[in-house]
Amino acid sequence: MNYRATVYYLGLICKVISAFLLIPIITAFCYLEWEESLCFFYTALVYLGVGFALAPKAPKNKKLGSKEGLVIVGISWIVVSLIGALPFLFGGAIPNYFDAVFETISGFTTTGATILDRVEVLPRSMLMWRSLTHWIGGMGILVFILAVLPSSDGSTFQLLKFESPGPQVGKLVSKVRHSAAILYFIYLALTLLETIFLLCGGLSFFDSFNLALSTAGTGGFAVTDASIAAYGSLYVEIVLAVFMLIFSVNFNIYYLLVIGKISIAYKNEELRTYFIYIVVCILAVAVSIVSAVGSFGVALREAVFAVATLGSSTGFTTVDFAQWSEAAKGILTVVSVLGACAGSTGGGLKFSRMMVVVKTAAVNLSESIRPNSVHLVKLNKKALSKRETDGIVGYFLIWILVFAVSVLLLSLLGNTFSVSFYTSLTMFNNMGPNLSVEIGATASYSSFQWSSKLVMMADMLIGRLEIFPILLLFTPKVWSRKF
Amino acid sequence: MNYRATVYYLGLICKVISAFLLIPIITAFCYLEWEESLCFFYTALVYLGVGFALAPKAPKNKKLGSKEGLVIVGISWIVVSLIGALPFLFGGAIPNYFDAVFETISGFTTTGATILDRVEVLPRSMLMWRSLTHWIGGMGILVFILAVLPSSDGSTFQLLKFESPGPQVGKLVSKVRHSAAILYFIYLALTLLETIFLLCGGLSFFDSFNLALSTAGTGGFAVTDASIAAYGSLYVEIVLAVFMLIFSVNFNIYYLLVIGKISIAYKNEELRTYFIYIVVCILAVAVSIVSAVGSFGVALREAVFAVATLGSSTGFTTVDFAQWSEAAKGILTVVSVLGACAGSTGGGLKFSRMMVVVKTAAVNLSESIRPNSVHLVKLNKKALSKRETDGIVGYFLIWILVFAVSVLLLSLLGNTFSVSFYTSLTMFNNMGPNLSVEIGATASYSSFQWSSKLVMMADMLIGRLEIFPILLLFTPKVWSRKF
Repeated sequence: MNYRATVYYLGLICKVISAFLLIPIITAFCYLEWEESLCFFYTALVYLGVGFALAPKAPKNKKLGSKEGLVIVGISWIVVSLIGALPFLFGGAIPNYFDAVFETISGFTTTGATILDRVEVLPRSMLMWRSLTHWIGGMGILVFILAVLPSSDGSTFQLLKFESPGPQVGKLVSKVRHSAAILYFIYLALTLLETIFLLCGGLSFFDSFNLALSTAGTGGFAVTDASIAAYGSLYVEIVLAVFMLIFSVNFNIYYLLVIGKISIAYKNEELRTYFIYIVVCILAVAVSIVSAVGSFGVALREAVFAVATLGSSTGFTTVDFAQWSEAAKGILTVVSVLGACAGSTGGGLKFSRMMVVVKTAAVNLSESIRPNSVHLVKLNKKALSKRETDGIVGYFLIWILVFAVSVLLLSLLGNTFSVSFYTSLTMFNNMGPNLSVEIGATASYSSFQWSSKLVMMADMLIGRLEIFPILLLFTPKVWSRKF
Repeated sequence: MNYRATVYYLGLICKVISAFLLIPIITAFCYLEWEESLCFFYTALVYLGVGFALAPKAPKNKKLGSKEGLVIVGISWIVVSLIGALPFLFGGAIPNYFDAVFETISGFTTTGATILDRVEVLPRSMLMWRSLTHWIGGMGILVFILAVLPSSDGSTFQLLKFESPGPQVGKLVSKVRHSAAILYFIYLALTLLETIFLLCGGLSFFDSFNLALSTAGTGGFAVTDASIAAYGSLYVEIVLAVFMLIFSVNFNIYYLLVIGKISIAYKNEELRTYFIYIVVCILAVAVSIVSAVGSFGVALREAVFAVATLGSSTGFTTVDFAQWSEAAKGILTVVSVLGACAGSTGGGLKFSRMMVVVKTAAVNLSESIRPNSVHLVKLNKKALSKRETDGIVGYFLIWILVFAVSVLLLSLLGNTFSVSFYTSLTMFNNMGPNLSVEIGATASYSSFQWSSKLVMMADMLIGRLEIFPILLLFTPKVWSRKF
């Protein structure tokens, strides 16, 4: 374990994050929130202080292996959240530090589960910081470092692969840094495009920009107590639904579109299957709620929004889905588990991964009748190697086990089965709304006891970083010098 | 596909099952239930009729491949259940044929879920037939054929491996038929031993024998409306708990004990881990219900019975576990999923399989930090081949997917999430009691609509035959002549 390099990169990350605090500080100036501007200023100082304490200068040996990469990603997300919670505490918006950390982890992991019963009472700059954590967390902290820092080298790139499920850098063009910059450009451009569309719907610039930041990271924090229901506008719902789905698609597709390779993008198997699947789920949900809501038009409108918000793991709400029919909730549960496409900012198990899992299961079935013939798992018409399918099936295995442990822990802490299951699901998939009847999709998480919240925080981090970086922090082997 | 041989074996199985009907016929004579004796006689005729219609004489080519084996097992269990339901219909005990089939499938698959709200009103011979279906299904129909029929050859043995999870024949001694006979002898001896122990507790011979048949198959049908609570005897509960656990252990262990190889039996990793796990679960459940039941003594008594009945997938009840604390139910859910040891008559995912899944997950984690070193999954101190772990992980994968589909189907049919989940769980693991608060562990399944019952029947068969034989019946490939 290269401790010096590990500590150096942790410090570097803290330094970089401090720069992002300029945005809430500017917001505070605009809305004359002087006290809040100080809160953000002090927080920036803490980030910088920790950054310089950990990384006064670059070590000679900056070489990073898989182990260092996992540890840096795991710890950096925790440290960044612990410090990122300070503005809420300093400003009194969330007087309890534990709750403030919950809110910040929920922000960076793009979960969007809030412990605030009311958000409209918060200063504007605090709301901006909440939305911004989504935006930073959606693409990933390390992609940003790679995109902007001139000193970034091969080692930084090593880190990136563990900060999944953000868009995968390095597969697009030969120059890694160039590729990270392109991704960030697409991310920024789509965010601004959404802001403009929302402005056209009559929303204020503040609301439009915040919702766009939140959508881009597929987070779900809104700036209104009633989430999207507050606007009561079909136009806003459609714009958000479309952009939530846009951000749940593999970013490489947009890159291919930008460089004109439309036919390759069109042939992408995950995208095509995902599109058909989303349409089928929308229709199925609409049919299963039509008797409750009255007309098919209303049912379709609500179904579109629900499938987009849960499928992309964003978590905006218009109505309380948890009160819908069991059939509709069953479909939405599947939508929640499968999640967004790989290489998007969305959460969940990831659609292409689930495609491989189902295909592997089908191959296993075929092998049981014809044990001696060769059966291949194919994706995009290319056969996957045994190593690749093993990796994906192995991830699914660990995903199921960690998920089961989370449900068990929440049950042991006294939550009912349905609450334990749906809370684990929404946290683990970085979604936000709770589908259990007891909690409901529109309620906050303030009613949970601290021990349950601790499990939920772990779930959010484990879900966002795809299990390994967090789980390995608790593996003694990782910490031995020899290893 | 060798259609002639397939049909021949289906007929053979029907002929053999007809012989078992002698037992309820004798019971009917003992209790002067003349009308019922006729019901069983007619049913035996139907079995024989179908048997001779399908298998008038042995075909020349009796060769069976994997595909024929799977099809024979899948269809035979369905046909045997469809005919086995007739006595309930003829005698009027269950006037609805659909419900009678449910009860019979629940019997043969050793689930023990009943649609009867009251069982004490049933004629004695009918109760005997119910318990007997458990006993036949527990060990498996094909093991019996192999053990008693002189004409059985290698082909019959081919069938056996698909009639899991009954004790695995063929691993004990070189002569397969000899080995099947030894297994049946142990099964019978343990059943009679339990009968004697229950007789010593003051139970009637009828009750003792029926409970013993039901325990041996880890089924769960009782002959009293209140299940085991009807006896109110600590002695009876202990005897049943001990025997339920005995029947949830790999039968090969008893064989090793019989032939004096105690040290090998003692070193069995699954057995030792299973034992520790059962003790830990009992203590954990006891602690989590102690405040509700008052004293630790009572809590321990109830916890022992609950863990034994759910861990072995038997399903006798003393109290309604579904009303226990969420913590206790969380542990019992884990106990239900993991199930009994491989090679026992119990259901569930099987304990050793889960051990391999967890070990494989741990190896995957290790590989993520040290991708280039070799990590082995070991069981009983022997490394498993990649093929073996792949098979087990693949089964787990399909198990999870089929289970999820079942939960989704029950949700789409309008059941609440908790009912859908726990009903799928109890059916799929051939357990019986329902842990959802809405249904409860002591209630019957009469309140479900027919469509939900259909899903449950499929679950029971899929669970008992470990997925493949039933799932493959719906695969068009299997039915092509060429394949």
